[in-house]
Amino acid sequence: MQIGLDRSSAQPLYAQIAREIQRRIRNGALPPGAKLPTVRELSRQLGITRLTVHSAYEELQAGGWVEATVGRGTFVAQRTDPAQVAAGLGQELSARGVLSDMLRMAQLPGMRSLAMADAAPEFYPLREFEKAVAEAFDTGTQVLSYTSTQGEPLLRTTLVELLRERGMRVSADELVITSGVTQGLTLVAQTLARPGDVVLAEQPTYLGALNTLGTLGLRVIGAPLDDHGLVVDALEPLIQAHRPRFIYTVPTFQNPSGVCMSPARRAELLALTERYHVPIIEDDIYAALSYEGPPPPPLKAHDNEGLVVYLSSFSKALFPGARVGYIAAAPQLITRLLSAKQAMDFCSPALLQRALAIFVQRGWMAAHLRRVLPRYRERRDALLTAVTRYFPSGVRWTAPAGGFCLWIALPAGISPTDLYLAAIERGVAFAPGDVFFVGPAPQPFLRLSFATQPPDVNAEAAEVIGQLLGTQLARRALTRQAPADCVPLV
Amino acid sequence: MQIGLDRSSAQPLYAQIAREIQRRIRNGALPPGAKLPTVRELSRQLGITRLTVHSAYEELQAGGWVEATVGRGTFVAQRTDPAQVAAGLGQELSARGVLSDMLRMAQLPGMRSLAMADAAPEFYPLREFEKAVAEAFDTGTQVLSYTSTQGEPLLRTTLVELLRERGMRVSADELVITSGVTQGLTLVAQTLARPGDVVLAEQPTYLGALNTLGTLGLRVIGAPLDDHGLVVDALEPLIQAHRPRFIYTVPTFQNPSGVCMSPARRAELLALTERYHVPIIEDDIYAALSYEGPPPPPLKAHDNEGLVVYLSSFSKALFPGARVGYIAAAPQLITRLLSAKQAMDFCSPALLQRALAIFVQRGWMAAHLRRVLPRYRERRDALLTAVTRYFPSGVRWTAPAGGFCLWIALPAGISPTDLYLAAIERGVAFAPGDVFFVGPAPQPFLRLSFATQPPDVNAEAAEVIGQLLGTQLARRALTRQAPADCVPLV
Repeated sequence: MQIGLDRSSAQPLYAQIAREIQRRIRNGALPPGAKLPTVRELSRQLGITRLTVHSAYEELQAGGWVEATVGRGTFVAQRTDPAQVAAGLGQELSARGVLSDMLRMAQLPGMRSLAMADAAPEFYPLREFEKAVAEAFDTGTQVLSYTSTQGEPLLRTTLVELLRERGMRVSADELVITSGVTQGLTLVAQTLARPGDVVLAEQPTYLGALNTLGTLGLRVIGAPLDDHGLVVDALEPLIQAHRPRFIYTVPTFQNPSGVCMSPARRAELLALTERYHVPIIEDDIYAALSYEGPPPPPLKAHDNEGLVVYLSSFSKALFPGARVGYIAAAPQLITRLLSAKQAMDFCSPALLQRALAIFVQRGWMAAHLRRVLPRYRERRDALLTAVTRYFPSGVRWTAPAGGFCLWIALPAGISPTDLYLAAIERGVAFAPGDVFFVGPAPQPFLRLSFATQPPDVNAEAAEVIGQLLGTQLARRALTRQAPADCVPLV
Repeated sequence: MQIGLDRSSAQPLYAQIAREIQRRIRNGALPPGAKLPTVRELSRQLGITRLTVHSAYEELQAGGWVEATVGRGTFVAQRTDPAQVAAGLGQELSARGVLSDMLRMAQLPGMRSLAMADAAPEFYPLREFEKAVAEAFDTGTQVLSYTSTQGEPLLRTTLVELLRERGMRVSADELVITSGVTQGLTLVAQTLARPGDVVLAEQPTYLGALNTLGTLGLRVIGAPLDDHGLVVDALEPLIQAHRPRFIYTVPTFQNPSGVCMSPARRAELLALTERYHVPIIEDDIYAALSYEGPPPPPLKAHDNEGLVVYLSSFSKALFPGARVGYIAAAPQLITRLLSAKQAMDFCSPALLQRALAIFVQRGWMAAHLRRVLPRYRERRDALLTAVTRYFPSGVRWTAPAGGFCLWIALPAGISPTDLYLAAIERGVAFAPGDVFFVGPAPQPFLRLSFATQPPDVNAEAAEVIGQLLGTQLARRALTRQAPADCVPLV
């Protein structure tokens, strides 16, 4: 196999190889089942290292283009057609199944995926972060040593400043560095509650949180959400009935709904939880992604009783791969969180913590946000415009002022699962709404994430979904007497 | 404060500042309580960035040289004298207290610490790893994205080869990348056992494992160890009596004892556990650190029934800061481990995984081991020679063929805590043996780790400990009629 490589190109050699093999698969030069040369053969033919070929094959395999069989070799995959792939999906609409499907969907060749509420890789500040890592290396061997369980002092000091801009006054001693918000939630939840305990969470809520809380053996009870955030009036009877160990909430640009809790609701929520002494776990991961001016301060900024445990991370504002998140909590809880973290994984990598601290201190975080916020706003607007244009009447949606998600409420009787599978056959992916609820969803929903696709792809995807919705609604009209009412949009 | 900086030096500027301030504290130019210039002032005076000064102050603070008070400034610490520091130590001889003390001890200025069973930072392959990280960045934005919960395919493929050299045949699908052995143990233990369940562990055993298992609510029962490893004959009645969920063992160069389980014992252990269907968690973290030729293959290499779960990491062979470990287990367990890992922290950082894969594939891991093994052997030999020379009769010790630890058995009646506090007053630190046992230690022990100190410091420390032992033995002879017998050495 001869492949022309351009060593002066900015595109790495492995990527050039992967792109060329993809092209040949697409145009049929490499049909399904065709055997690729071995890594050793191709590296010899092209005069490059085996690692380069290996990396190219890895990427092709991750994208579903090729399949490797131990001892036999690497072959062009049989199923590169999304229509065929759909058959293997959606069998298990559990949180875990959908999380895995979403990851696979996002990587399928040609898939227009609005499934992941994630930062766009093409916006990652890769070179600046590489510089920050190089600077971190220059600080010496400590970057490869154990660091404190609580986290690198330099990063915690930096976060104190960053959180002050968010209206929070915490000291470096009140922070714990975690492996993303996911580990933060694990540590806090297992410290505040035991298996079998009841906790409250917004309904709908973040899928990963449901998975984490469920895995810890906690009984999650849903609390209603409207377009001002958690419905505090509905919360009091739930607190009285269940005496929950804590309330998990994403007040700012919630995932999946896009809702931002109003300042009045925040004050009511704090007053209520102080009255009942119920801790709040506040997940503030989307706060930096605000497209219409600064969002309200977090609950933690007005936490008089030390009842709010604050979680966030760099995963949405920058990139998720550093796996660096943080907890801000009252000192007496910090001690218990440190014990739990020490027993769980001792500490998080010093190198990445120090590099992120340098990245923020150099002003690159602020510069990055100035650069990407208009781009995300543009993507959101393209999706909103297309949804308005292509979605049939009877469908409603949120117009989020921040974050990554549009939440679509469908008329009763539409099956999100049928829609999900039909969309995948047309090369479009999204997240069906059912999975964001702890019980059955009160009506059908979809979550469309606008962040990872350019404006035109967001518009195309909305057009496809709109057509499929039209077809389903027409079919429903034939089989049902009266169209169901729309419940108020959350 | 004027400090002469050498910008052409290989030593980073922050380190030059820290060294100079340490020197002035030591010679009294900066007395206890003296206020250092603010970061802003010193950066202006020296014409360097604030981050550089900040890093210098961080290091001084971590080492106990200075203390920072929010809003007041940075001051020379009152307690830089080990004799004074001792007063605050050893109050809590729990696993957690001793772990924290050990970390603090190792960082105290002038402390000759044999307390940490850890790779020596001056041997870290910092520049090669930095190159590997740079190469990983060149593979594109994927290094900053989520990777699979199971771990980077490139690293798992690389580990398959590395484990084959260790006599193991596992596929990449049978591996899970973890945040060190600590997270590996957490995931496996919480998958195999529930709070309140009984598990067996060697007696003595790794302190961190006791902490992790205890935090999970498991009841750890000790199983005896001799100089061939776990005493298999004593294990059967324990299995019959307690029906443990698993047995945790470090068969190769055990921490703290240094013992390497003999091939015969390994075969007996496997036969016994297969008969009772008891899983084994095998911690193989020290295997690469072998000073007398290759160690026996791990238990996992002869695991016919899929009962052995294998844990290891790069923390001892390279450096601990990457926080990259791995589990090798039977496929049916892998699925459950992935669910647990997904809920706990979703995935480990792709960048560090890919960089380690590149590091190993380039041959830098093998080269590193060729370089450091003779150095560690030299440090071990210096300690052994000094112990032989300076320790009074009645004291016995292991002569480990690998790993980082000498295990010292003292005559009954010696108090390891008194010795620990007396040694710290003389500027020498070690780990008292009691903490490696689940119950009371059968006799007094010490663990001396030879890896982090140069040969001459190992010898000095052994001389100090030998003198203190002599004094304690003399005192004991005055107050006791008959000296206690030595029990056989573990």
